[in-house]
Order: sequence, then C-alpha cells, then structure tokens
Amino acid sequence: MTESPQHADPSILAVRLRMVRDTLPLLGVDAAVLVHGPNIQYLTNFRASSAALVVARDQLYLVTDFRYSGAFGALQSARIVPSDIVLGVAARSIDETLATWIRERPDERVGVESRYLALSRYTWLVDAVSGGRSGLGGTPLAPADVLLPLGDVVEPSRTRKDAFELAILREAGRRISTVARRITTGVVRVGRSEQDIAAEIDSLIAGAGFERPAFETIVASGPNGAFPHARPTPRTIRDGDLVIVDFGGVLSGYSVDVTRTIAAGRPSAQARRLHAAVLDAQRAAMTTAAPGVTAGAVDRAARDVLDRAGLGRFFGHGTGHGLGLEVHEAPAITSLRPDAAATTLAADMVFTLEPGVYVPDLGGVRIEDDVVQTAAGAEPITTAPRGLVPDDDA
Amino acid sequence: MTESPQHADPSILAVRLRMVRDTLPLLGVDAAVLVHGPNIQYLTNFRASSAALVVARDQLYLVTDFRYSGAFGALQSARIVPSDIVLGVAARSIDETLATWIRERPDERVGVESRYLALSRYTWLVDAVSGGRSGLGGTPLAPADVLLPLGDVVEPSRTRKDAFELAILREAGRRISTVARRITTGVVRVGRSEQDIAAEIDSLIAGAGFERPAFETIVASGPNGAFPHARPTPRTIRDGDLVIVDFGGVLSGYSVDVTRTIAAGRPSAQARRLHAAVLDAQRAAMTTAAPGVTAGAVDRAARDVLDRAGLGRFFGHGTGHGLGLEVHEAPAITSLRPDAAATTLAADMVFTLEPGVYVPDLGGVRIEDDVVQTAAGAEPITTAPRGLVPDDDA
Repeated sequence: MTESPQHADPSILAVRLRMVRDTLPLLGVDAAVLVHGPNIQYLTNFRASSAALVVARDQLYLVTDFRYSGAFGALQSARIVPSDIVLGVAARSIDETLATWIRERPDERVGVESRYLALSRYTWLVDAVSGGRSGLGGTPLAPADVLLPLGDVVEPSRTRKDAFELAILREAGRRISTVARRITTGVVRVGRSEQDIAAEIDSLIAGAGFERPAFETIVASGPNGAFPHARPTPRTIRDGDLVIVDFGGVLSGYSVDVTRTIAAGRPSAQARRLHAAVLDAQRAAMTTAAPGVTAGAVDRAARDVLDRAGLGRFFGHGTGHGLGLEVHEAPAITSLRPDAAATTLAADMVFTLEPGVYVPDLGGVRIEDDVVQTAAGAEPITTAPRGLVPDDDA
Repeated sequence: MTESPQHADPSILAVRLRMVRDTLPLLGVDAAVLVHGPNIQYLTNFRASSAALVVARDQLYLVTDFRYSGAFGALQSARIVPSDIVLGVAARSIDETLATWIRERPDERVGVESRYLALSRYTWLVDAVSGGRSGLGGTPLAPADVLLPLGDVVEPSRTRKDAFELAILREAGRRISTVARRITTGVVRVGRSEQDIAAEIDSLIAGAGFERPAFETIVASGPNGAFPHARPTPRTIRDGDLVIVDFGGVLSGYSVDVTRTIAAGRPSAQARRLHAAVLDAQRAAMTTAAPGVTAGAVDRAARDVLDRAGLGRFFGHGTGHGLGLEVHEAPAITSLRPDAAATTLAADMVFTLEPGVYVPDLGGVRIEDDVVQTAAGAEPITTAPRGLVPDDDA
C-alpha cells in the first residue's frame, strides 16, 4: 500500500492562507474568526474538537483548550502546524479568550463564520466584545457592527483541490475501489443479513488502511432499498433482491464514497431496466461535467435520462456532492437548489456522481463514483465494475 | 449477549414529550423549533442527518427531506415514531418548509434552539418568517420578536435517564467492561505500536456488539500520554511506558466511555505514585457524588486529592461529563466553569469520573469509569480492574 502523507507541507499551508487573506478585504473585514474544524485544519493541519482560528492580516491566532495545547506545541516543533501561529490557551472557555483578543483590537473590523457559529455563541461574543461600548450618540451598536456575519470564508479555496489533496484523494479512490471489487464479487450473498454485510464492509475498509469509514455504511436490500438513507437491519438477503451498498473511507483526513447496486441471485427484467437507466444517467452526468459547466446542468443531464425512462419521479436527491476534508462539501451537484445549481465547475474540483431511483415496495438502485474535474473532463478516481451481477462489467 | 432494545416505547416518548411541552410556557413560547439531532431522536426515535422538529402545544411537526421521508413512513407504520407526528417533506430546503409552517401560525410565539441553530440559518428564518411583516407603527420587528432564541429546551429532561435508557447504559457498561478487561490483560505490550493497539481495541468494541466506537480510540504511550487528546501514532510501546487507553462504544444510540492506564513492563516508583494519586482522586469523586451535591463539589473532591499530592497543576480538565445519546452531554462534572459547577446532581444522571495527570515529557495517567447517580451514591456501571499492571486489582 502506498503510504499517504498525513499533513500538508508548510509551503502548501502558506498558499492556502494567502488565498484566504486575499478575500478579507472583499468580505469587508480585517480579520475572520473561523470555528469550523475542517476549515481550521485546512489552514493549519491542526485538528481539535474545540478550537477557533482568527485569520487577521498580520496574525494567525489559534485558541484551543488545555487538552490540545500540549499537543499543539509538539506539532509546532515538528513543523506540522505553521510556526507563526500565536496560541491562546482558553483558561475558562474558547470564546472568552477569543473575545479578549478581539476587544484588544478595537480598530479592526472582525467577522465570523455565520454558517457554523451557533446563534447563542454569536450573541455571547457580541456582548463580550462590545462590553459597554456604544456607537455614535451613545446608542448601542448593532450586532453586525460588532461582529460581521460572514458567508463562506475558506470554502471557495477548499473547493478546488491542491496537488497534496489530489494525491490523497486519488490514493483513497484506488483503495476504496479494491474494497468495492471485493464487495461486488462475493460479500453480498443470499442468506446473509444486511448488518452482517455492513460489518464485513467496515472491516474491509479498515483493512484497506483507511482511518475510519467516512459515514455509517449503508446496506439496503429488497424493499429497504427504496429508502435512500436506510440503516442496515437484520433483514436477510433473498433471491432476486436488489442490494444497495454505499460506503466510504477517510484517508489522511480526506473522504471518498462509493455506491454499488448488486442483484442477489437472478435479477428480474425490471431490476435490469432500472439498473441500466441509472447507469446511463451516471454516464450522462459524467460526460456533461466540464470546467465552465454549471452543477445544475450536470444534474439535469442525469435527470433527463431518468425522466425519459419514466423514472424521474423516483429520483428525489441531487446527483452528487463535493468530497474533501468533509464527506459532503461544495460543490453540490444539483439543480434542486437554485444557489447550488448556479455553481460553475472548475478544474481540480472533486465530487461524486450518484444518480439513483427508489421505487416504493420494490427497492432501489444507486450507482456512485468519485471524479476529479480536469480540463479534459470528469476523470473517475473510483473504478470498480458497476454491473448488477459480478460477471457484468458495466 | 443480552439483546439491547433499539427504540424507546411510544409510552416513554409520550412522557418525554410531556416534560418538554410543560416547559414551553416557562420559556415564554407556544412552540419550540428543535434542530439538534439527539434532541429530535430523544422525542421521536427518528434519526436523520437533516431534520427539524417543531414541538407545539397541539402538534408535533417534523420536517425532513426526500432521503428520509420514505423511511419515516415505514417507522410510523411500525409504531417506532409517534403516530401523531405530522410530516413535512422539504421540497427545496428544510428551512423553507419550516418557515412556511411558522408563517401560517402568526398568533403563536415560536422559539428556536439557539445553541444549535447557526447564525446564518437564524437570520434566514427570521427574514423568511417575517417576510415584510412589521411591528407597531411600521417599524421592522426585532429578530427575537420573530423567533425567540431559547436556551436548552430538551436537555433538562435528557439529563436524568429513564428506565429504557438506564437499561441500555448498564448493558453498554457491561460490554465495554469486557473490552477493558481484555485490554488490561494482554493487548498493551512492549513492541506494539499505538496504532496497532487502537485497531485491536476497535475490533474488540465491534466484537462486543457496539454499533461503532463512541469516538476515535486514544492510545497514548510514554511522553505522548502527556497530551490528553493524543491520536494514536506509529510509536512503539517501550519497557516502563505508561500507556493511556481511552475508548468507548455506542449501543442502541447510547455512549459509554472508559479509560485505563497500563504500565508496559515494570512501572517506575514515580509511575506508581501518579497512578495511586489519580485512583484516590477518582475514589474521592465517586464517594462525593450524591443527589443534591453540585458537580463543582465532585470535581473539587478529585482536585483536592491531586493538589495534596502536589499534582494539581497537571490536572487541566474537568472530572467528568454526562453520557447518553451524546458522548459528551450534561452534566459537566467540573468546577472550572461557573455555570456547570453549580449544576446539582440528581438520581438517574449518568456521567463519567475521570481525573488525570499529564506530566510533560514523562507521560500521563487517567482513570475513567461511568456511574449512575442513585440515591445511595454513585454506582459504577463499568467494572474492569483499574490497576497499573494486570495482577493489581485496584
């Protein structure tokens, strides 16, 4: 197994930080407070369940608590986290230490990640930062004048993967494909329970060197397959069942995610028809994806195929989602939400393409692969056969 | 293995819902919008990554998306989720469907879970709900007059476990104790890497019938033990190392969590001294915990022991945390945060007691067990030997 590097090089972190710092003036702030773990990790390599990072023009200020601060020193000595981070150890709470830093810079305009900061934390911070300060004429400051709610600060940079990330995602794609090949040729068998199969998949994921499954493995057989997010049950696979298996792994912090649909025993003509339509839909999405094309157009390409097959009403979710430090991140490949539909694809985005149909009482079919968007097209990084039965090499 | 029930009975859900409905007038609202998954699950048995639940005086309204709505119907037929839930399927987004429901009840005062609702969602909902409505004299309504930010709505009920929850937690405690016994008598050995040991612990957790580990298993050996939240590294255990192993499992949705510290080879006199002090601190916490006593007093009991041993400065975290549908929930057993310190313990609370010392360069010792608070005292539900070496039966 190729070793996967655990941490982005300091030079890569510097490039990412530059991109984020360059957006500060566009957002109308001198500093942005980040509270979303994956965004903090992207800029610093530092992972903690409890931390905040202030990206100021002249400083990177990280607040974490006692449990992580010792580890942080070791990471800094090992040159894993940037050497110029200033560390604030939270004595009582992350937010108290953060508020102190902000209060000491009264002339700077500070914003917060509003998608991730809870309302109660925002209210508390606004009070703590303004602490009696008031605006012109003694009127209280509006909350947004104390801490400006910001949209996405780091996500626009994260959407296009750098070389370090692409290398990890490609390696993760290779590994999850070996797991997929094993699953499609023997793991799903008549007589086994969904839970049994899910446990074996999880151990295959561990055996392939992943840190952990990227999400709770889905094994949905027969009628259970009509529920896109079914949990594995004790139900036993029967002859003729369609079985959806959806699984993923995390490698060096990055997620990949694959779905196959397998017929147990001899598939019915109906099952073959559903499977062929979904596969066509996935191919249509794959050939449509190109730099400059919108996410909505890729979704509609898949949806049109299923519409023409009379199956459009059974396809209720979007065609895909971005992959990276989160298993669901931008870009969302969908035409169902106007904001996401307008996203323009660009080179080095990494996302899933996973159309599906879910027919009540009968079951479901979903086929999911991960692709890197290149100038030449969508390049699959997962490669296991997509056939309904092991000898099909769709 | 005793089978663990997966879902609370409808009669239990009805009791929980009654408790929450009774608090609505005290919070000053007619309806509360819940967005935190564990709170929704507690009241409905329904688990989804994306859902909102409105608890109104006369209705329980659940909004989820296409991916889960089919599964919901099946759960309702099977009497797993309450039969009187009204389902709203999100056409475009959860929040749009939610805003429509709220707009249609202009005379009701509605609040939101402010600890869990992100600032951007709150702002969006306030705009969508008020949609041009204004207050007296045409002035815009203040956000809090549109949607009132609420503190904890469900957590006060969740803190004291009901009979269903206690049965699961006791069974989970028994199972994790068998894992702990295996670990303390052979898994931690000189020459093995931390990562190797962590992988074996994870497979023991799976083998004991847990759904998944409750968090990323910690194996911190030698100097790495000085970092309370170290991730397992390739470091190989050496003779004389102190090794902290901290692991947990999720059973029927409920988490338990145990830590043991094991000496590899022959422990030094210093290691024995640290271990004995931490064990004394844990015993002090355990005998102090009683209904009516504050969480702060329990924490101070442990802290006093370590202070007297000259080790207080090496104990930087709280003594424990609540366990339930989340692996960290109320009550926090700490004197470090004034709000948490004032919490009064009550019967049927379930929490960890886990003092520790972390000595730079040398390593750490932490001992963690889970207890049910009863009228008679803190009753441990985890029972593996706490000794530093396998033959110690501390």
